[in-house]
Amino acid sequence: MKQKHVDGGICAPLGFMASGVAADINGKGNSKKDVALIFSETPAVAAGVFTKNAVKAAPILVTQEVLKNQKLQAVVINSRNANSCTGQQGMKDAVAMCCLAAYSLKIEPELIAVSSTGVIGVPLPMQRIEKGIVEAAKYLSKDGNADAASAIMTTDTFSKEIAIQIDLNGFAVAIGGISKGSGMVHPNMATILGFITTDAKITPHALQAALKRANDKSFNMISVDGDTSTNDMILAMANGLSSNPEIQLDTPEFETFIQALEYVLVFLAKEVARDGEGATKLLEVQIVNAASMDDAKAAARAVCSSLLVKTAIFGEDANWGRILCALGYSGAQFDPSNVNIFIGDVQVMDKGRPLMFDEEAALHILSKNEIIITGDLQSGSANATSWGCDLSYDYVKINGSYRT
Amino acid sequence: MKQKHVDGGICAPLGFMASGVAADINGKGNSKKDVALIFSETPAVAAGVFTKNAVKAAPILVTQEVLKNQKLQAVVINSRNANSCTGQQGMKDAVAMCCLAAYSLKIEPELIAVSSTGVIGVPLPMQRIEKGIVEAAKYLSKDGNADAASAIMTTDTFSKEIAIQIDLNGFAVAIGGISKGSGMVHPNMATILGFITTDAKITPHALQAALKRANDKSFNMISVDGDTSTNDMILAMANGLSSNPEIQLDTPEFETFIQALEYVLVFLAKEVARDGEGATKLLEVQIVNAASMDDAKAAARAVCSSLLVKTAIFGEDANWGRILCALGYSGAQFDPSNVNIFIGDVQVMDKGRPLMFDEEAALHILSKNEIIITGDLQSGSANATSWGCDLSYDYVKINGSYRT
Repeated sequence: MKQKHVDGGICAPLGFMASGVAADINGKGNSKKDVALIFSETPAVAAGVFTKNAVKAAPILVTQEVLKNQKLQAVVINSRNANSCTGQQGMKDAVAMCCLAAYSLKIEPELIAVSSTGVIGVPLPMQRIEKGIVEAAKYLSKDGNADAASAIMTTDTFSKEIAIQIDLNGFAVAIGGISKGSGMVHPNMATILGFITTDAKITPHALQAALKRANDKSFNMISVDGDTSTNDMILAMANGLSSNPEIQLDTPEFETFIQALEYVLVFLAKEVARDGEGATKLLEVQIVNAASMDDAKAAARAVCSSLLVKTAIFGEDANWGRILCALGYSGAQFDPSNVNIFIGDVQVMDKGRPLMFDEEAALHILSKNEIIITGDLQSGSANATSWGCDLSYDYVKINGSYRT
Repeated sequence: MKQKHVDGGICAPLGFMASGVAADINGKGNSKKDVALIFSETPAVAAGVFTKNAVKAAPILVTQEVLKNQKLQAVVINSRNANSCTGQQGMKDAVAMCCLAAYSLKIEPELIAVSSTGVIGVPLPMQRIEKGIVEAAKYLSKDGNADAASAIMTTDTFSKEIAIQIDLNGFAVAIGGISKGSGMVHPNMATILGFITTDAKITPHALQAALKRANDKSFNMISVDGDTSTNDMILAMANGLSSNPEIQLDTPEFETFIQALEYVLVFLAKEVARDGEGATKLLEVQIVNAASMDDAKAAARAVCSSLLVKTAIFGEDANWGRILCALGYSGAQFDPSNVNIFIGDVQVMDKGRPLMFDEEAALHILSKNEIIITGDLQSGSANATSWGCDLSYDYVKINGSYRT
């Protein structure tokens, strides 16, 4: 699979438009955009993955219901209020958001997914939401991708978007995506929202399977703080406006499509990890030669989530002991006296024994913005990669005073 | 069971002596005590629980071997060097520590456990260790408990010790304990060392069972940072010098003994949590009415370990949403619309809905040094308690620059 980066984000695929407007949802009068719309000219095949938290916000429940038809034409999203822990009123408000969008877009509410992120336990300000949706519908355009990407942000410090084009047996197919993250980011899946658009023609079954597989290697492999939120969702819409023959499950085209989708999701997931609350560095942990894929994933996640590793990375300290320790409690099976550990390309541990490594070289690597740690378990042939970030003073500052 | 606090720590039970001396193990010339000895006049029945980390330090492996005889007369402990990831040399050094102590105490090395805590990957400075052990043997005394408690400390800011006396069917039995913790503290069991002495007469089987049960409700229910170390151990020695009839498994006396042991271990575990790296507050999470004990424990630990809860406690923010969110991803089964949450005695959530609570009263509670959060899952009758601490700027500071 060869992908070409293209402009346009979620509007890059044929037939998609987007918008993002400021509706003052927290009532503080500032001009941050906080309502977004994504719209396809024609109803699209749709798939979704959702938070595994037992406490699910109203928009999650409503969107899961809508998605039973595996069809969407639009998504309405607001930031600054998660509509979570808001009881029956929250459910009514989430449905109302779909209806308001349906009215503005002149389509059926059953074709609209709803998504919210922000503070929890506060009822949505429905008058402002309504105004925002009406306006967002008015501003829908082929150039609205950046506005939408910025409208879904919460404590994110930059917006995340990507678009690529691939060649699928001679047919051009585009995939675009936007996401947001920042806090409460952990496998399964954290306060992550992600919206993927594509003009590929694909069966609902294949799209759902592709999304799940790509998600398992991307958003399910990042951790900022170990907390899984009540509102996570990744939605994919495929409107079929490309002229490619319909992609079926378990065909070569399906594998190509998954690779492309994974490329998009990994890009977005890394951006979310890089922008973790208070983060100063992106941490990538590659586990190689694990006994099983579950072991590889568990080991990668354990190192990426270890507060002691995260603070060491913040402090630019080549602390291989904390890395080995995290591998040890990850649950992965391996012989500690066979493990090799690298920080960047500097080997710091050889067969379970610390090496006298070049501290200068290690410090040079650790002073960069992206740090790669490799753990070679020498126990098999399974590999996995996870992403996270360092833990800084600012994480504590941001989260010691979020609600108030 | 009625317990009476008494003086003497681990020297309170009949026949036990202890000492702690400064052997300059990190070679920096300062006078912090770093070698400790605990000694019983007569060989004692012994039991232990150990780290579940797949990477086990040399003293763990040596002590597990020694404990196969279920008998100990002494324990030799050093701080400032964990003798972990030190390969074959580390194993030889750990055995040498037992032999040096045996020689100084004129007992068999097979009766001596060894324990180490501190930096990992650095060979023990055996000359200094030897000098320390010889001196510690010389200073053994009935008043050495405080010196021993302080010699096992690493980044602890205060030493942890306790002694209680109980009445066992008319016979006085004493139990003493010391412990250390601070960083890498998490269930199963973290850089926790704990040493328990008692003059109770008890079978080896009953002592091991009692230690395991008491440990499951104490040290296995605390979390500072989620990292489980390579060196954790809790040892118990029962020398039988009290005249009580020997305690057998599953008798009323056994239950009384467990309650007393649990009291001692919970006291020490709470002290470890209170003194977590950078901690300013002790956090206690009580889960009530869970569907099962596993659910209750998982829910208590999830709330206690949540970085978002921990930073909220640091910021004195009554953020019930983060508590509910952590309950949600804990894996415990419950209906979110039935949950009640209390911060101290202020109810902040009723049947899954946030309450308009008195923010002043909540702030007053959160300004204290001990915060109790209660989650009522309304799903059954199992209860569990866990302990942790807040996450402060100082945690990041301490761990951003530990090794260097």
